[in-house]
Amino acid sequence: MAPGFPTVGVIGGGQLARMMQQPAIALGIGLRVLATSMQESAAQVVRDVRIGRHDVLDDVLAFAEGCDVITFDHEHVPTEILRALEDAGRAVRPGSAALAHAQDKIVMREALTAAGMPCPRWAHAQNVDDAVAFGDAVGWPVIAKTSRGGYDGRGVWVLDDAAGVQDLFASTQLADGVRWLMEERVDFVCELSAQVARSPHGQAVAYPVVRTVQTDGICTEVVAPAPGLGDEQAVEAQSIALTVAGALDVVGMLAVEMFQTSDGRVIINELAMRPHNSGHWSIDGAVTSQFENHLRAVLDLPLGNPSLVAPHAVMVNVLGGDKPDMYYGYLHTMARDPGLHVHMYGKDVRPGRKNGHVTAVGDDLDELLTRAHHAADYFTGVIDE
Amino acid sequence: MAPGFPTVGVIGGGQLARMMQQPAIALGIGLRVLATSMQESAAQVVRDVRIGRHDVLDDVLAFAEGCDVITFDHEHVPTEILRALEDAGRAVRPGSAALAHAQDKIVMREALTAAGMPCPRWAHAQNVDDAVAFGDAVGWPVIAKTSRGGYDGRGVWVLDDAAGVQDLFASTQLADGVRWLMEERVDFVCELSAQVARSPHGQAVAYPVVRTVQTDGICTEVVAPAPGLGDEQAVEAQSIALTVAGALDVVGMLAVEMFQTSDGRVIINELAMRPHNSGHWSIDGAVTSQFENHLRAVLDLPLGNPSLVAPHAVMVNVLGGDKPDMYYGYLHTMARDPGLHVHMYGKDVRPGRKNGHVTAVGDDLDELLTRAHHAADYFTGVIDE
Repeated sequence: MAPGFPTVGVIGGGQLARMMQQPAIALGIGLRVLATSMQESAAQVVRDVRIGRHDVLDDVLAFAEGCDVITFDHEHVPTEILRALEDAGRAVRPGSAALAHAQDKIVMREALTAAGMPCPRWAHAQNVDDAVAFGDAVGWPVIAKTSRGGYDGRGVWVLDDAAGVQDLFASTQLADGVRWLMEERVDFVCELSAQVARSPHGQAVAYPVVRTVQTDGICTEVVAPAPGLGDEQAVEAQSIALTVAGALDVVGMLAVEMFQTSDGRVIINELAMRPHNSGHWSIDGAVTSQFENHLRAVLDLPLGNPSLVAPHAVMVNVLGGDKPDMYYGYLHTMARDPGLHVHMYGKDVRPGRKNGHVTAVGDDLDELLTRAHHAADYFTGVIDE
Repeated sequence: MAPGFPTVGVIGGGQLARMMQQPAIALGIGLRVLATSMQESAAQVVRDVRIGRHDVLDDVLAFAEGCDVITFDHEHVPTEILRALEDAGRAVRPGSAALAHAQDKIVMREALTAAGMPCPRWAHAQNVDDAVAFGDAVGWPVIAKTSRGGYDGRGVWVLDDAAGVQDLFASTQLADGVRWLMEERVDFVCELSAQVARSPHGQAVAYPVVRTVQTDGICTEVVAPAPGLGDEQAVEAQSIALTVAGALDVVGMLAVEMFQTSDGRVIINELAMRPHNSGHWSIDGAVTSQFENHLRAVLDLPLGNPSLVAPHAVMVNVLGGDKPDMYYGYLHTMARDPGLHVHMYGKDVRPGRKNGHVTAVGDDLDELLTRAHHAADYFTGVIDE
């Protein structure tokens, strides 16, 4: 590296760390990745890979040695390790206090409620009786979540009645420190995501609010900007995300996943304090991508422009199917659609796994949706031509 | 890497190889780099670095082992090594026969003349008498070039008269296989570059023709599309580049640098068979960048869309100045211009060295020129604010 350029250490070797490497190359900054194997997605594409575990203190401390700032591919680093890094004088961004809200959904609900942010009705259920009382109060069905450790739809259940609560609680052994969060089931017309980048000294930028489609708990389609969302609602959603970022002192990217209700309200569903699947469109569709702005934010550099470069961008995840070789699909998809942006994560194909994504950017939303879904379906093997 | 995905071996570890890594990450393909040290620009950003020399046969053969295709960061690999790779059954793209035209300017002039392409008047001067006779015939001053090994203005002289020829020839010891090329000095109004990507089975795409500005033999500014170039002239320049690519059987990116004369003709100056400085704007300003299309072409994948994503793109090279730390300049340049695209190459700063480039993309060409030059000048240290 050239003199004066910093090194960012990323804990976790998944596709989010992988996609940070592209702007790291452009900015001339070093990217070091803590991965569990050299075959992990990000470990394939950076020079400076350290093998170790995110939940082993010595591994993380050794990894951080020589990094100018530490950030994350995921939110699973235990709080005591985050604090030990901070106690050792490391710049941890986002910090342990902020990350606690992305790691524990009850901590998040408490903080959001205290900040006056719109949440579904919720309760910490210490036992079956608490959970049943909550359901009786807000109306069945209700949502039960484990407070920690869930992602991509895991750790979330819909419960129809008291018997459902009893079955779930009886069949689920919670790990230490994990609690039951009960939430009202929100009747939503669509799901939105509002992303912001925020730097340590408080500069923040808001990306266009997007519409997300979840299938079986996995994000499958993102449209930027969210179709049909009025200016006023879009500004409200962006304001909520900016307020949350400030209230929780988030540094880096923050995604606020929201429900839009039929009566036009938005209600916060989940938070993620890192680049997020709902912002992958920004690599090809925004002036400055979420990955570049994450790096800029954690380095306390001025933030880049989050605006769209065209009227619409559509991102569709490429899920694994029965074909082990997705490269073969390049011949068809690239010949059919020379303007399509293909992103693959270097992972073995497994059914339902996020193996990559495709993005189409342009003027005609219907056409972009058709193009992106066609390519993703072709890679997955849903269609053959 | 995922099953079925190929590895591209790039000989040379400069910034062109470095910038191939970003689309290699997106496409999920492996990039292996042959570098002379781990500190080289590309060696900093890929996992699979091999240390060796491009002009040592055993180094190159060992490097190629396990690569699906071999391509280049520069044109300095000796022909006999290229042929040995081909004889060993390696896919070398572009191949030795095509590359000979980018390596030897007399071979290039012969082939372009045979193909009916517009060249300045030229001659191979075996001695001083030949060179003086050429100058007397076409009119002084004339251009003298070494047939091999020149770049960024090196190996090129302007000679005013017979005495100048005598001085140059007396003071210059040509290496084995290097010859004197004499060329008419073309009275040009501006310099253009026409880039095309071409695949082994003959698919080709043409990028918008750009205007380049050279300062002391180094490309310093590129504007896409070339301002004031008529549609007819642009199509003519693109047609020339496509014809050259086909006639010389180029695979990968080809840049045809041209002079535009005051009477509206275009005349070929130089060829480069790799991504080229005149196409760096395409990373941020085209749907598919020259680096992605180079990879697609050498892998015989369908080519991507070379169109601009906005009316104009301006690229300005960041040359080294007196400040050793360019990172410090990020605070000013990014705060002033959140939409600027910064690309740094990881090199120590040296006066006049290409340390990076900046690109601005948008509607107002004058504004883009101001923004890009301001940032580049600030990094170099020409201006302070």
